[in-house]
Amino acid sequence: MIPVDRLAAFVHTVLRQTGLNEEDARVTTEVLITTDTWGVFTHGTKNLRGYVRRLRGGGLRARGRPRVMSEGPAWALVDADSTVGMVGSTFAMKTALAKARTAGIGYVGVRNSCHFGAAGYYAALAAAENFIGVAMANDIPSVSVPGSRGAVLGSNPIAFGVPTGGPHPILLDMATSAVAGGKVYAAAALGKSIPLGWIIDAEGLPSTDPTLLPEAASLLPMAGHKGYGIALLIETLSGILTGASIASHVLSWSFDDPSRATDHGAAFLAIHVEAMMPRSTFAARVQQTIEEIRSAPKAKGADRIYLPGEMEWEKRERALREGLALPEDVLEKLRQLAKEEQVEVNGLFG
Amino acid sequence: MIPVDRLAAFVHTVLRQTGLNEEDARVTTEVLITTDTWGVFTHGTKNLRGYVRRLRGGGLRARGRPRVMSEGPAWALVDADSTVGMVGSTFAMKTALAKARTAGIGYVGVRNSCHFGAAGYYAALAAAENFIGVAMANDIPSVSVPGSRGAVLGSNPIAFGVPTGGPHPILLDMATSAVAGGKVYAAAALGKSIPLGWIIDAEGLPSTDPTLLPEAASLLPMAGHKGYGIALLIETLSGILTGASIASHVLSWSFDDPSRATDHGAAFLAIHVEAMMPRSTFAARVQQTIEEIRSAPKAKGADRIYLPGEMEWEKRERALREGLALPEDVLEKLRQLAKEEQVEVNGLFG
Repeated sequence: MIPVDRLAAFVHTVLRQTGLNEEDARVTTEVLITTDTWGVFTHGTKNLRGYVRRLRGGGLRARGRPRVMSEGPAWALVDADSTVGMVGSTFAMKTALAKARTAGIGYVGVRNSCHFGAAGYYAALAAAENFIGVAMANDIPSVSVPGSRGAVLGSNPIAFGVPTGGPHPILLDMATSAVAGGKVYAAAALGKSIPLGWIIDAEGLPSTDPTLLPEAASLLPMAGHKGYGIALLIETLSGILTGASIASHVLSWSFDDPSRATDHGAAFLAIHVEAMMPRSTFAARVQQTIEEIRSAPKAKGADRIYLPGEMEWEKRERALREGLALPEDVLEKLRQLAKEEQVEVNGLFG
Repeated sequence: MIPVDRLAAFVHTVLRQTGLNEEDARVTTEVLITTDTWGVFTHGTKNLRGYVRRLRGGGLRARGRPRVMSEGPAWALVDADSTVGMVGSTFAMKTALAKARTAGIGYVGVRNSCHFGAAGYYAALAAAENFIGVAMANDIPSVSVPGSRGAVLGSNPIAFGVPTGGPHPILLDMATSAVAGGKVYAAAALGKSIPLGWIIDAEGLPSTDPTLLPEAASLLPMAGHKGYGIALLIETLSGILTGASIASHVLSWSFDDPSRATDHGAAFLAIHVEAMMPRSTFAARVQQTIEEIRSAPKAKGADRIYLPGEMEWEKRERALREGLALPEDVLEKLRQLAKEEQVEVNGLFG
């Protein structure tokens, strides 16, 4: 088990020595570590090595400064200045909160961003201040659309958080693909086939062969035309309206030339609950809804109904108490990073 | 083929004689007829008989007036005064547009509403004025959640519209259930089984028997926990934050006592594109995205990739030109309604 504070200290050290200032390193560390504690290991410290590679390559600007380029009473467009995705995105959600505090709701669109990690972090940030928060972003194409044979849109994630009056918000963080690519790769590594409905092959036909991804296959959108449509709405709010790159014009944060900016787009919405309803009334109504969901008669074999995010909050509490059991692929990336960045970790990563 | 203007005249006549004023009858007619021309017959004039029953019963108030109960720079909460769902919802989206025109984005939540028909109508209303529009509503429980054996949340629909600079917006209108209940009933009527993934039986286990719905089955959410989460976000914005009834407390517009208000909730978002980006720039960026999607290599057997809403806009153009081929179940409802309301239709409905 890796103590959360020791992992955080490592991340912070690496970010500081790649040139991030104290505050940006703190923010980025907070996002990545929170994500790991939720058990969302695909989007946590595993990716730090890739970000550092871009920081070293210049495609990410360690000393960049996100700034508001244009704004109105309830909106702003932010140029993230090719900073680490977590820096620009946290800045943007805080800007959305400030707008919503006076106007009731705030929309902030971001261009010149990069991979922002777990969308849920930013939604939770809003919910912690008693706002309903929504976060979304575009990405390089990895998902087909109905009728295409290859990838057309990104797995464009969306997350929302709803304050509950309790310690943790309702929190959903989802990709708009049927499944994450990582699940397909995992099946391939185990030599297993996958269910129909996850991928299509190079001809655009359904396939159960996970080894085809990514060269000869693409992911299917969640729920067919519905996921396609939601991904396109996310592309609109994150990419089209913000001035960021769109769809195939976005660069990969992990594969493309690390000296180039990826120009991801993102969007953040915040709704100021207290402007519309007393905090206690809203909390009581959320609790009534939660209670109704939790107490619903259970399916055969089920003993509990979870709220969105509930499993992740329980994992986080356990991680803060007992430490993190990072998967081997994450540990390997961290070991490589420690070596490359010459940070002494005293066997922290095995 | 039924001429669209003749169907509209019938709907308008019926609404006027149940007590709606000229403007409310016009608005409601416009929503229902537009929906039929899109080919979305489940949400068009088929339901007029049910609305009239509630108008006659008093659960819908023909002379009610939707009004803003509280508001801020970028938001409003509306009490729809138990008017026909289309009246309060159109009022609410127009209020959201007015807010967005000055603030950049507007949120309007509605309580004391009723079934609002096709969410897409209100999203298209916004898009026609060059706003990005989003519409959503809650409804009586018909959909299970992961771990439940019965229905917990409504099929809570959401729709969005994006202006394209062309004659029609990108338009998606979807339920958050895996499929519409109507598809299950249709399979039952034909004596067919249904795929796994559409419903669960009374024990909460997957079933292929469509005859179980609704007494001994419930719908599954779209994409499992993702659809559950999105439905809960819609419940939050439509029901919890608006003061409307929530989940099981909503009454059925078609089955429950017609003298009682159903107290549905709804929510509308509008984003003022031109506040953030010149209209022509936005249109060019949307067109670039559309072109990239349409020109993607096609899957084997596919000769065209559709944008969300494109099929519906083509159906509408055909309907306006050639008339409507209404399905028999819709015709039967219209015949019954004409008889009950003693409106002479000269065999219009066969």
